[in-house]
Amino acid sequence: MGERGAGQGAPASSGPSGPASSEATAGTVLAGYLHAQAAEFLRSLRLHRESGSDAEDATEASRLLRRSARRIAGTLHVYRPLTDVDWTDPLRAELLWLSDTLGREHAHAARLARLRGALHRLSGAEGPMGQTGAGASGARAAGRGGYGDGGGMTVGAARAGALLERQLTLARTRAHSAALQALGSSRFHAVADAAAVLASELPLDPAAHDLLAREALPCLAEQAHRRLTDAADALPLSVAGHPYNAEALTHGLAAVPAPDAPPAEGRQDAPWHQVRRLVRLRRYAQEVLDEHVASEAEPTLSVRLLGANQALDRHRDAAEAAAAASAAARTPRIAPATAYALGVLHADQRHEVEAARYAFGRIWQRLAVPTA
Amino acid sequence: MGERGAGQGAPASSGPSGPASSEATAGTVLAGYLHAQAAEFLRSLRLHRESGSDAEDATEASRLLRRSARRIAGTLHVYRPLTDVDWTDPLRAELLWLSDTLGREHAHAARLARLRGALHRLSGAEGPMGQTGAGASGARAAGRGGYGDGGGMTVGAARAGALLERQLTLARTRAHSAALQALGSSRFHAVADAAAVLASELPLDPAAHDLLAREALPCLAEQAHRRLTDAADALPLSVAGHPYNAEALTHGLAAVPAPDAPPAEGRQDAPWHQVRRLVRLRRYAQEVLDEHVASEAEPTLSVRLLGANQALDRHRDAAEAAAAASAAARTPRIAPATAYALGVLHADQRHEVEAARYAFGRIWQRLAVPTA
Repeated sequence: MGERGAGQGAPASSGPSGPASSEATAGTVLAGYLHAQAAEFLRSLRLHRESGSDAEDATEASRLLRRSARRIAGTLHVYRPLTDVDWTDPLRAELLWLSDTLGREHAHAARLARLRGALHRLSGAEGPMGQTGAGASGARAAGRGGYGDGGGMTVGAARAGALLERQLTLARTRAHSAALQALGSSRFHAVADAAAVLASELPLDPAAHDLLAREALPCLAEQAHRRLTDAADALPLSVAGHPYNAEALTHGLAAVPAPDAPPAEGRQDAPWHQVRRLVRLRRYAQEVLDEHVASEAEPTLSVRLLGANQALDRHRDAAEAAAAASAAARTPRIAPATAYALGVLHADQRHEVEAARYAFGRIWQRLAVPTA
Repeated sequence: MGERGAGQGAPASSGPSGPASSEATAGTVLAGYLHAQAAEFLRSLRLHRESGSDAEDATEASRLLRRSARRIAGTLHVYRPLTDVDWTDPLRAELLWLSDTLGREHAHAARLARLRGALHRLSGAEGPMGQTGAGASGARAAGRGGYGDGGGMTVGAARAGALLERQLTLARTRAHSAALQALGSSRFHAVADAAAVLASELPLDPAAHDLLAREALPCLAEQAHRRLTDAADALPLSVAGHPYNAEALTHGLAAVPAPDAPPAEGRQDAPWHQVRRLVRLRRYAQEVLDEHVASEAEPTLSVRLLGANQALDRHRDAAEAAAAASAAARTPRIAPATAYALGVLHADQRHEVEAARYAFGRIWQRLAVPTA
């Protein structure tokens, strides 16, 4: 990891190449983007070290660290043919490991907040999270009027909330320890060293040195787009496009063939999670392109990719929250009322999964047309 | 009930008055419709008596009996000012009692079938009832592919099904006995006598004798339409028009302020149930109009009213099925897994409630425009 091919690096570039550089090489543009992200990575790491016991600062630093790690890894993935893959492939894998390890604590905290919000909402009070956009929420609050708002939770719902609180807080604490351990490991220090290299120099493939940015980069971004399109077209979008198709809960009460088999809902969700990853790669690919030619940038595309990404993030979050609710319901010796509330919660989150698919389908319709 | 004002009856008319009768009186046209419905009522009653031990024939006869009872009562409601209200008001109340008493057995059976279908569907196999229209169902079946179809139910779902089966079969048996008792009562015989009168003569209000059908009937139908429009406009349709607004489950886990207080979801549903009744009245009003002037009939309106009615029937059925699932979950000493499955089922049916509101909202948009 610390080693790299000598003499193949592109020089550091301090910022966007600007519209004048139509003769810029692909290596220069890509390096410019990666230098900036690597610098961001190192800055976040410093922030994290300096945050000390301030949990909020540490959370924000960790978020920024994961953000740049994902962007570096994604960019190295899309523009892989331009880089020295002996050096970049291992770095990419290590960045994904890091982002995953650091992200778990946040994921458990966010899951708990989502489930707490849902329990609150299902008890007739508006949850802290607007689930369907500000417009719908506003209309909802106005339309509901006096239907016993704030009537309080059932005993089962309160107990379900306490159970989830215990289980997810425990998981979060474990993830926190694991993240701290990872940040102190020699494995992490090797990643940080590689990021320091990347902040000043990008090891390129020798054959890619003279490729023009305006030719090579859009071509590779287009390939990423095609992988995304192929995967999205394989999704059951015609079903998802019918509101209230009741598809996401189809396996809510399905028995698994063996105790260690994955839940059927997970199998149904997997292709959507895969598209989520491909949307993300496509977004990062676009960020590199936008860096290069700010004037030709297509803001609509970036905005739609972001929208698609957010819908699929919501899809994943709701799917994992639903799984957490049904896992909690398998806790031994819980009261029937608690189990009932967890069943309602599970179905509610699967409903959110379905809503996210519907939202993605609508965004995708508009995304897919201009490139067809 | 058996008495009626002498000499006020309109003569029997054997069928539609035909397009030529533009000078027909309102009394003649209304009487024509009611004669036909009363004859239908008496025929269904005979069918029911002759059905003996054939449960299927008895069910069908009961359905036809309720169908004509509802139409007579609804028509007498909308066109009340034309009739001798001293005679028609009590008959109307008795017909509603009869339709309600006879309908309960069917309602319990249908509720059980709906919940059984939902449990089946939630276990990854296609339920016997297409819940979102044939198109979506077809696409669903095609789109799902091999996601573990027919994997079977969880133990909790199977037990929840057995519990619902027991409870709703018991309720159905009780409703069956109550219906048989009602059909043998002197109260029922008085209704049958009144229907026999109505089959040949409609007691009219003296002031209504000379009103022209083409003037009086549309005016009263329009009043029924206005009552419907006012009630529908008061519904939170702007919320319901956003798919996945998560509104119907808003009180899924809300505590009731007192043990004997109605569930919060019932309060939320009540205005929709009221609109359902008004749609029904408007439909029957239209049937009388269509009888009168077949050539001027507006088939689109009738079709849309029927669609709106069906959406709101589905709304009521799903709301009552959801209530049955949560009532079953309050059975003492059930296993947590059973309660969990009932929670999922409850949320699923509330999801159906929301879907029905969405469907009604879309139909209503098209219904409301031409009369605005």
